[in-house]
Amino acid sequence: MTTINRQWRLRARPVGMPTAETWEFAETPVPAPGDGQVVARACWLSVDPYMRGRISAGPSYARPVEPGEVMQGGGVGVVVASRNPALKRGDIVESMAWGWQDYATLDPRGTRKVDPALGPMRHALGLLGMPGLTAYFAFLDVGAPRVGDVVVVSSASGAVGQVVGQIANLMGCRAIAIAGGAEKLAWCRELGYDAAIDYKAGTLREQLAAATPAGVDVYFDNTAGPIFDAVMERINLRARIVQCGTIDTYNRPGQPDVGLRHHRHMLVKRARWQGFLFTDYVHRTDEGLERLSAWLREGRLRYREDIVDGIERMPEALLRVLSGANFGKQLVRVSPEP
Amino acid sequence: MTTINRQWRLRARPVGMPTAETWEFAETPVPAPGDGQVVARACWLSVDPYMRGRISAGPSYARPVEPGEVMQGGGVGVVVASRNPALKRGDIVESMAWGWQDYATLDPRGTRKVDPALGPMRHALGLLGMPGLTAYFAFLDVGAPRVGDVVVVSSASGAVGQVVGQIANLMGCRAIAIAGGAEKLAWCRELGYDAAIDYKAGTLREQLAAATPAGVDVYFDNTAGPIFDAVMERINLRARIVQCGTIDTYNRPGQPDVGLRHHRHMLVKRARWQGFLFTDYVHRTDEGLERLSAWLREGRLRYREDIVDGIERMPEALLRVLSGANFGKQLVRVSPEP
Repeated sequence: MTTINRQWRLRARPVGMPTAETWEFAETPVPAPGDGQVVARACWLSVDPYMRGRISAGPSYARPVEPGEVMQGGGVGVVVASRNPALKRGDIVESMAWGWQDYATLDPRGTRKVDPALGPMRHALGLLGMPGLTAYFAFLDVGAPRVGDVVVVSSASGAVGQVVGQIANLMGCRAIAIAGGAEKLAWCRELGYDAAIDYKAGTLREQLAAATPAGVDVYFDNTAGPIFDAVMERINLRARIVQCGTIDTYNRPGQPDVGLRHHRHMLVKRARWQGFLFTDYVHRTDEGLERLSAWLREGRLRYREDIVDGIERMPEALLRVLSGANFGKQLVRVSPEP
Repeated sequence: MTTINRQWRLRARPVGMPTAETWEFAETPVPAPGDGQVVARACWLSVDPYMRGRISAGPSYARPVEPGEVMQGGGVGVVVASRNPALKRGDIVESMAWGWQDYATLDPRGTRKVDPALGPMRHALGLLGMPGLTAYFAFLDVGAPRVGDVVVVSSASGAVGQVVGQIANLMGCRAIAIAGGAEKLAWCRELGYDAAIDYKAGTLREQLAAATPAGVDVYFDNTAGPIFDAVMERINLRARIVQCGTIDTYNRPGQPDVGLRHHRHMLVKRARWQGFLFTDYVHRTDEGLERLSAWLREGRLRYREDIVDGIERMPEALLRVLSGANFGKQLVRVSPEP
């Protein structure tokens, strides 16, 4: 086991798309836990679209990373030192406040002990973690699906989207995927999506019209931008729109997001458009995990992960996600599982 | 009593703002009721922003008026001939399907017998009719106000807005009016709005910031457009946005509505934005009228109307509404009350 703690720190806020120069790699000693804390060794680090927001200065739902600070992010790993009576050496823990580093010093608050019986450890960052729980609560609570609803999901093969499509199926809905490229489309169909639409083909509106002859009842949006506009054209009376991600709005160098406005359409369709953040549902984690892990055990949920090896490749992995090059939930393998 | 029926018919669909040439005045014989119908003489006709939508060809929530047809609109008046056992000569009736004419032939469905004890007959088109009921249900059901909420209302002195502000006060909210010009602002303050903002002053954002230091919890929007954008900047976590009208989007000659997009903000604030149409609440009319008329009797609601005399001035009255020149609920007095 290494005795140094490798970290990625923010070097400077990027304008537009981040680059390899946005972060710098550093080495520090492995920390010791303070009272109530544990220190844990990362096996897997998570890479998620929200990270782009954390390196912008603008106000968002969380404090941004300051230049010089360790980059924020979630991870799962093994407790190596504990001053928290509820956690002992060898326990598996997950935290959204891990940071891009080998060794995290974790406060009790926000640290979740992971039950290895529920599934592979890395799922604590995906299907059985924030993305899976986001899919579960955002779709069921905010999307409010009914049997027979037509559900459209953007970024449909992504960390959240692939779970939404499968839950939609389990709920008796007709699920339509929007994703980029033949390989992702094929995977969406394999997952049980009733139709899959390629936003890169240049015929998004036509494909949508063909796939949703009866309109759209629930739109689970992970992108915003032109994909959003195309789906809005097809919403039904009392449609529900879940704003779960806005990856299309990232990486614009400072300019405001200008485009089609949907006020009239919202009124005419009496649609409901609502923002979602898992933060508001953390207290219902156990409820969601129970359901998701049961479906996983029963073989009713599958989950695709895109694995990059080595902490030194964290920036590269995030750029994959921001450009849509990843295929499934993006993870970085940092050290062997125990 | 006249024995001819004067009517306004749509001559041609306008491009942009309608003009006097948009409609043509015609005279026809007074009709006789068919089985189950009544014929009623208009005392008051209603003029509302939605009428602009009805003369566009584009899809909306209702069938548009075709050129040559009588212009659609609501009215209240006196039954002069009845073949409906539930209504007799002399009864006061209100209908959204009156049309711009002296004499309407009314089907049982959609015809409401008005109880003169509830308030002045003309209120059946305003405070105790569609606009008042819209304010009541849209604000309470969709806006979901809580005591202490900051509520911003656009078109705050209009047919709907003035009721929303007063109900917000009755519910223990802090109500902020947006209206145009000193006279309307003064009236809003008189109604009990805690602050009033002049959108014509060119300092909308600054005025909003000063009036809502603690942000905005409910935005009751009647305008869309730049006013909407300015309020969105100030919404609080879990804000509710009621899309009740979109008067700023009317009268644009065919071009798409392009402007600031709010996807990221919707997500970060976990806001809920929902369209409202009274159609969905017609079955709760009695419930709303009971409450509104009780408040009126108790002196807790006031209602300002803008009255134009003579059916020949219907187009002029609508242009007043579309340009914001009206002050309060726009009505046209067509014939004396019985």
